[in-house]
Amino acid sequence: MTTIAFIGLGHMGNPMAANLVRAGHTVLGFDLLPENLNVAKGHGVTIMASAEAAVVDADVVITMLPAGKHVLSVYHSVAKGTKAGALFIDSSTIDVESARKAHEIAQANGLKSVDAPVSGGIGGAAAGTLTFMVGGSAEAFAKAEPILKPMAGRIVHCGEAGNGQAAKICNNMILGISMIGVSEAFTLAEKLGLSHQALFDVASTSSGQCWSLTTYCPVPGPVATSPANNGYKPGFAAALMLKDLKLSQEAAASVGAATPLGAHAESLYAAFNSAGNEGSDFSGIVNFLRESNRDN
Amino acid sequence: MTTIAFIGLGHMGNPMAANLVRAGHTVLGFDLLPENLNVAKGHGVTIMASAEAAVVDADVVITMLPAGKHVLSVYHSVAKGTKAGALFIDSSTIDVESARKAHEIAQANGLKSVDAPVSGGIGGAAAGTLTFMVGGSAEAFAKAEPILKPMAGRIVHCGEAGNGQAAKICNNMILGISMIGVSEAFTLAEKLGLSHQALFDVASTSSGQCWSLTTYCPVPGPVATSPANNGYKPGFAAALMLKDLKLSQEAAASVGAATPLGAHAESLYAAFNSAGNEGSDFSGIVNFLRESNRDN
Repeated sequence: MTTIAFIGLGHMGNPMAANLVRAGHTVLGFDLLPENLNVAKGHGVTIMASAEAAVVDADVVITMLPAGKHVLSVYHSVAKGTKAGALFIDSSTIDVESARKAHEIAQANGLKSVDAPVSGGIGGAAAGTLTFMVGGSAEAFAKAEPILKPMAGRIVHCGEAGNGQAAKICNNMILGISMIGVSEAFTLAEKLGLSHQALFDVASTSSGQCWSLTTYCPVPGPVATSPANNGYKPGFAAALMLKDLKLSQEAAASVGAATPLGAHAESLYAAFNSAGNEGSDFSGIVNFLRESNRDN
Repeated sequence: MTTIAFIGLGHMGNPMAANLVRAGHTVLGFDLLPENLNVAKGHGVTIMASAEAAVVDADVVITMLPAGKHVLSVYHSVAKGTKAGALFIDSSTIDVESARKAHEIAQANGLKSVDAPVSGGIGGAAAGTLTFMVGGSAEAFAKAEPILKPMAGRIVHCGEAGNGQAAKICNNMILGISMIGVSEAFTLAEKLGLSHQALFDVASTSSGQCWSLTTYCPVPGPVATSPANNGYKPGFAAALMLKDLKLSQEAAASVGAATPLGAHAESLYAAFNSAGNEGSDFSGIVNFLRESNRDN
């Protein structure tokens, strides 16, 4: 069993850490918020006074933080105080550039590292069924895989440093675009007198088929388990979709990639969030589009 | 067996008519182009001198024409000269408004009618595996179904008059949007150093999954049967995708539906077509996006 420092014990980090404790690991936890530490304590995490204190005895350091600046700040603070050869796993969803900088900090300090952002949300974190998209060397991946296992439904090695983040934002850019596309189709269908179920029956078995339609249908009815049947309670909050679309557009700008629909999807989700829907499931954008004026 | 007038014997109409002949029907054909009539003759279609002549003895009249104005022109010309109670099937892909007008003409002349646009392309027409999206009364649908069968893989009743067209353009709007979204993700991935296969492996089993990715992947490699592995030979030509996106936007404008990504997809496919790609498969837009400048 392994001694793991877990830094960032929020809505995602806490259930992830709990699964590591359940798997028999010693988990030393730190978070800036006392209430998060209390929850972690209840899960059997040993609470430490600081990130620096948490890493001293750790063979693995996992971070689950809001943004690239937080990850880099922690890496800068703790890299020197960590055992030689320890493995750093950053499961935060952050920008690709910061993810690659984090790898450089680790390497400069004789540490192994992977970026390993997740999909699957709070439900997947609790159930231990997250998908991990992992970037880093084959050696670091091989070390990370058994550690991730108790938290994972699926672990994909996406290539070198930063590629886990790249895979996640590319996937989620497709997701944001296709959810808006499906939502536009439903609202157009309504106004043309075509029922939700009829459009679903055609498109779900045709070339319009996509996860946003067949697994996460944004209108109530066709897919019983979709948030549309539950008042658009997330699920995957609109604020997080906007975060991921912003990351995709920062990445696209940094490498000069043309992503016109990605940029448009970001602006539509920004408008949806600004209208007070940050806490709604991202599929709720269908209602925003229905009420939008075509000419505005 | 039924006597069927088939008007419009182009790339789609001809193989469809051939399947009706093969099923034992008497098919009386007309087209404005002599070369199309020659092909039809080879398939066992009886060539008639005009649309008016073709319909006189017909119990069913099928039209497969380029646009709404052609369909309405034929309906105006032949409706009075058709047997009382005959069934009109329009399999053209046309605007919803014209489709509903065609139904009105049929009804005013004591005829039954369905709009029944197809998906599946020339390959599906030849193989008799087209998907028919059918709008019209339950009675008209029940009469149309056995006639469509020899040409069909799937026949979906989408509701009342015009709803077949509505379903097709809503589906194809999702398709156009998702193909661009997937293409943007691949070109972004490339520039970030993430391989096509790695992105495919993540997204095809995750929330980015869509037909445009997993059945019709726009980059060579991951899906052996996609046109990307065959020099982007259609498949489904970019000119036809642009036609369907235009129809979706005409429909959206007519009912005041907000379809921002649909409109954006139309403008991107217009630019792709204008750059000389009308005859390319629509998935070739990935190459157009790769070469596009983010700031333009």
